[in-house]
Amino acid sequence: MAKGSISSSVIRRMPRYYRFLGELARQGVVRISSRELAERMGLTASQIRQDLNCFGGFGQQGYGYNVPELHSEIGRILGVDAASRTILVGAGNLGKAIAQHLDFAKRGFELIGIFDKNPDLWGTEIAGVPVSDIAEMEAFCAEQHPTVAILCIPKTAAFDTAQKLCALGIRGFWNFSHYDLRQFEDVVVENVHLGDSLLTLSYGLKSSQEPDEKSAGGAKG
Amino acid sequence: MAKGSISSSVIRRMPRYYRFLGELARQGVVRISSRELAERMGLTASQIRQDLNCFGGFGQQGYGYNVPELHSEIGRILGVDAASRTILVGAGNLGKAIAQHLDFAKRGFELIGIFDKNPDLWGTEIAGVPVSDIAEMEAFCAEQHPTVAILCIPKTAAFDTAQKLCALGIRGFWNFSHYDLRQFEDVVVENVHLGDSLLTLSYGLKSSQEPDEKSAGGAKG
Repeated sequence: MAKGSISSSVIRRMPRYYRFLGELARQGVVRISSRELAERMGLTASQIRQDLNCFGGFGQQGYGYNVPELHSEIGRILGVDAASRTILVGAGNLGKAIAQHLDFAKRGFELIGIFDKNPDLWGTEIAGVPVSDIAEMEAFCAEQHPTVAILCIPKTAAFDTAQKLCALGIRGFWNFSHYDLRQFEDVVVENVHLGDSLLTLSYGLKSSQEPDEKSAGGAKG
Repeated sequence: MAKGSISSSVIRRMPRYYRFLGELARQGVVRISSRELAERMGLTASQIRQDLNCFGGFGQQGYGYNVPELHSEIGRILGVDAASRTILVGAGNLGKAIAQHLDFAKRGFELIGIFDKNPDLWGTEIAGVPVSDIAEMEAFCAEQHPTVAILCIPKTAAFDTAQKLCALGIRGFWNFSHYDLRQFEDVVVENVHLGDSLLTLSYGLKSSQEPDEKSAGGAKG
């Protein structure tokens, strides 16, 4: 299958393969069959083979997969070594938590700047990176050339800020604002709508209580 | 279509409809055609009709949709009035941010307790709810009967904690731990893997740079 036609659902499963294989590698597992990997991940062996075939296929008939090799190969596919220069816009509770919670370097990103309009935060550090006045963002981008922005700002500010950042050379957004960024051409956007996720859980709970909806597998774990 | 067979991708789109319709209703829009709603949401009119038909269909030929009615109808489907009694386990950076960032009541949940093993946090309040010693969680559950738990705890603690909570009557998890909860029967799980989301963005950025992968629509916004 040509790389260009890989479906988004296959792509969305790749980070999970990467996570499981990393865990296995850390446990010292060197070799695993697709059946065994499938069991651990709650998938079918055939789905795993199909997914990996989209990227060329990595297993050997009768051997299975070499865990450390497949892990680093998927990491390469996902771009974990990219070290994309990244800024965080909005250092409120959520922005701060995200900056502190995640290991960006391990996932292909380098956090180089944090901006907020709240003067109380200027000069403080989050994850070792100082928070600056959002008014300095433009000059910073012109000098440091970040290519990715994490948006943790209110909905009302999201579009204008994103538009400005695009003009400043940003070509990827990790967007936590309650605003769907989708108007920008040639920009990669990954929206994280925590509220939508919570509503999906709500639906799942409601369905699981209604006898005629018992079989709705949708939001089930 | 019977309710039991609604696909997870349709279910996952419903919170987004709810969000867009809520926005329109707040703007005073009373009526909208499926074509107009589709344009705003970046979908096709036929997809919207198909999605809503899964729940019975709500539009009227030649009229379109009544925005406030459809908004409240989807809210009902999603269970926004459920007020499920919810506890947060793990009040570190991420747990704290999530409790402060989201309006649980508007999405069918009532946050009634927060637990952490860090003594420095005991007695402090997050979003108006006091943080208690995690050792008190069992007694709290026996008395207050929460049905939902938000897990913001390390991967190593996730399985044991979830197992304990299931025995204490929890039947839904909003799971932010880097651990896939999927072993539990009759429990609804919504996993939020922020790291996976970041890796999906990484892949999207990498693909967008490779000329032969330009058409990969996967992680594009």
